[in-house]
Order: sequence, then structure tokens, then C-alpha cells
Amino acid sequence: MPAEALFDIRVYYEDTDAGGVVYYANYLKFLERARTEWLRELGVFQSELRAATQRIFVVNALDMAYRKPARLDDRLTIHSRITRLGRASIHFAQAARRDGELLAEGTIQVCCVDAVSLRPAEIPPEVLSILKSIQE
Amino acid sequence: MPAEALFDIRVYYEDTDAGGVVYYANYLKFLERARTEWLRELGVFQSELRAATQRIFVVNALDMAYRKPARLDDRLTIHSRITRLGRASIHFAQAARRDGELLAEGTIQVCCVDAVSLRPAEIPPEVLSILKSIQE
Amino acid sequence: MPAEALFDIRVYYEDTDAGGVVYYANYLKFLERARTEWLRELGVFQSELRAATQRIFVVNALDMAYRKPARLDDRLTIHSRITRLGRASIHFAQAARRDGELLAEGTIQVCCVDAVSLRPAEIPPEVLSILKSIQE
Amino acid sequence: MPAEALFDIRVYYEDTDAGGVVYYANYLKFLERARTEWLRELGVFQSELRAATQRIFVVNALDMAYRKPARLDDRLTIHSRITRLGRASIHFAQAARRDGELLAEGTIQVCCVDAVSLRPAEIPPEVLSILKSIQE
Repeated sequence: MPAEALFDIRVYYEDTDAGGVVYYANYLKFLERARTEWLRELGVFQSELRAATQRIFVVNALDMAYRKPARLDDRLTIHSRITRLGRASIHFAQAARRDGELLAEGTIQVCCVDAVSLRPAEIPPEVLSILKSIQE
Repeated sequence: MPAEALFDIRVYYEDTDAGGVVYYANYLKFLERARTEWLRELGVFQSELRAATQRIFVVNALDMAYRKPARLDDRLTIHSRITRLGRASIHFAQAARRDGELLAEGTIQVCCVDAVSLRPAEIPPEVLSILKSIQE
Repeated sequence: MPAEALFDIRVYYEDTDAGGVVYYANYLKFLERARTEWLRELGVFQSELRAATQRIFVVNALDMAYRKPARLDDRLTIHSRITRLGRASIHFAQAARRDGELLAEGTIQVCCVDAVSLRPAEIPPEVLSILKSIQE
Repeated sequence: MPAEALFDIRVYYEDTDAGGVVYYANYLKFLERARTEWLRELGVFQSELRAATQRIFVVNALDMAYRKPARLDDRLTIHSRITRLGRASIHFAQAARRDGELLAEGTIQVCCVDAVSLRPAEIPPEVLSILKSIQE
């Protein structure tokens, strides 16, 4: 299993702002799409996870650094790695690059919670073992 | 009760796109904010409505015409009227104006549905009577 | 050239709302992505068009009908056709389907405008001839 | 001048996701609205600043911690303070609270840049002196 996942995104008008560049909050959408598709490739479907175990993943902390702007029609590649895996949390290091050039990067701390109470809950064992396998 | 409700909105970067104007989909957010605040002023709180009656309002049809662009920092006023009130539906005519000048307008058909099945359901009588009162 | 273009979209958390379904304004983003990618496949790149001719495409009218809700993790296919082609305007009929089932559909009137004045401007001839070719 | 600015925000459907809570990226919109309105109250209008000096403010780094979820119809208050003021940068500490309870907090580093080159540029002196005055 690859330690790093890649996911491509096109920049549309919806992603940009009147400064002519991608709006800063929208990178968080890009990073989430990349995390979601990575999990899907690994066989983890969040809506099924919720239906089966009443667990959802939520972001509980993040930091971002914006290096260079992305613009309309740009093709970005989101690079994703897991840097820490706990019993109820996953830390991702993610970056948005255009032709290799770093545009933005950040670390995203995702927590597994009960879908109703929103309290931390252990990552289901079958999901945890999948996530462990890609770190080796 | 006024037949027309007014709601002010400021245009932020989040609302604009690389064309330098408000992104076309974002007017639908503005119109919904105006409908929601109007209902609140009338004493209809959607989250309470859901908790008490398991009913939510959803949009099932709309049309929009974009006349002139809105730009960053503009102050828009959303004008809202109810043009038709059925047992399970409300039709709104809404417009976004800047200093009286028409920028965009549309009609929005909202349907009352069961929050779980999403099937049409009658508007609760206390809400219906409030909505009828503002049409007189 | 196919008279109808297809474009696939995954529904992420960013697209949904607390009703558990895709937020109504977000379909307009999906439809725009589909129009944009269709134009790209035909060789029309909007940022290049702007740089070369100072022309951009803007939406000046639309109507939408929402038939059934889309949910988290759904895979939608956006179907796009050109129904009318004028010297400065393009009318699209578009629909969002899930496994063939119609979820939402609409017609979108796009106008070619000068990027600075935002006044209607003729579609550049090379773009017009491409668009004409797919209608035959 | 108050060292802390307060700005109220209502949570609408557009802000929430299928988890039933405010989507994590949308807090960045809330924080920006609060920064923008604070600057406006101080007499700094970003579109005028751009027209007069070709300077815009962009976010170049941030961190966020999400403590508790916000839900539909919630009334949030965004608290904003300036924690560091440089010649081309402003650091804000911001928090979203509901009835005093902390929901999310973060630090946002904003940089003054040339609107065309997007390279760092000094904050115009009249703006800098306004910002200095509120720290005293």
C-alpha cells in the first residue's frame, strides 16, 4: 500500500474569489475530498461506516500554510499521508501542488466520534487495521 | 404584517468568484437566509419545527434571472414576498437589490416534507395560519 | 461529437446540509463543473479564452426542478445538452442522475460577456464553430 | 477602541453538513466576515483599499481547534483580537462562541499583498495607524 495518496482536482469558478485565486477556506474542501477518496480506495465508505457502526469522522484541529495562489482552471494534486494513528484519531499531512510546486499544506487531525453524541469513539477494528497496513 | 420582507446582506470574498462578481449559486444562499429570517420574525423556527413536528421545508423548484453583477463589499437588500400558499407548499418571489437597483430575481417553490421520508407533508396548522396572516 | 455530455460527481460532506441531502444551491456548482469540463474536452479553456479575447461566460438565467434528494457518498452523473446556440448565448439542458434515476434538472442560459464591462459580446468565431459542430 | 470585536452570525442550512453540524471549512468564512466587519467599523474598506493602493489582505497561515459542534439556527458570536501587528502582516486570535460557550477557536495570519503580483507589501500607513490605535 502506498504511504502517500494522490488526488487530482480542477479549480472551477466556485472555488475562486474576487482576488482571482482559490478562496482560502476551499482548500479544506479539497483536502477532505482527497481524504475521502483515499479511504474509499482502501474500502472505507463513510456513509456505510455510519450506518453499520454509528461512527463518523470529524476534524477536531488543523493548521494550514498558504504558499502560492491557485487560479481558475488550475489542475491541483492533493498529496495525503497519515502521520499518526491513534485508537480514536488520525493525523493527516496534506499538501496541494500544481505541477509539483507547493501551493498550500497543512495537518488535519480527524477524530472518530459517535454520530449522535459526537463524543470520541474508537475507530472500528477493521478500519483501524486497514489504516495500520498503509503505514507499514 | 408587511406583505414584503427586507433582509440586508454584505458581499464578502466567500461570495465572489474570479470574475470579480458574486458567484451565481451564492444568490440562492442569500435568498434562503432572507426566507429563514423572515420566518423567524414571524415566530417560525425551522429547527424547532423539525423537533416538534418532524417537518422541514425544502426547495423543489426555482427560477432565477441575473440582471446586473454584485461585487465585493456591496450591501444587498433581499426583497421577499409570498405569491402562493398551498397546504404543503409556499411560493416566494425574491429579488436582490443594491440601492434599489435590481441585480437578480427569482421565484422559489418551497415544499413542506417529512424530515425522514422527505415526502410532502402538510404545513403544520399554526405555521399555515401565520403565513396566511401576512398575505392579507 | 456526442450531442450529450456526461460528467461524474461524488457527493462529499461539503455538498450536503443538515437535512442529510445535497444543498439545493450546490447543484448549480455541479452543473457548472459539467459545462466547464465539456467545454474543455471540446478544446475551449475559459481562462485562455479570457486572456486571448477578454470574453467570459456568465449565467444570466436558469430554472431548476428538484425531484429526489442526493445523499453523502452518492455518485451522480451530470447530463448536459445544448438546446439553443445564439451569437452571444448558449442554452444548456442539464440533469443530475444517480444510476439513471433523475434527481434534479434544469435549463441554464449562459451569456458571453466582456470580462471588464460585463456587457454581452459575441462568442468568438472559433468557439462558436466548435459549439455548432456538436449540435449536428 | 475595544481590544476585542464581537460579530454575530446565524447558522443556516448552507453552513451545515449531513453530520448535522456546521461544516469545518465554513468557520473560516465566519471568521473572515468578522474580520471584515471589524475593519469596516474602523473605517478600512477592502475594496476601496484595493482601488486606492492596489493592496489586498490575504490569509497566509492559520490554525483551528474545533471544541464543540454548532447546529442549524444557532446564534454564534465571533470574538476577534489582534495579537501581533507587523509592517505587512496582522495576526488575529478568533473564537466562535454560543452563549459564551467556546465552539471553535483559531489564529489567522493575514498578509498585505500587492493585488496583482500577490507579493507582500507594506500595510498603507493610514491603515497601520488605525490598527495600532486599537491595540493600545
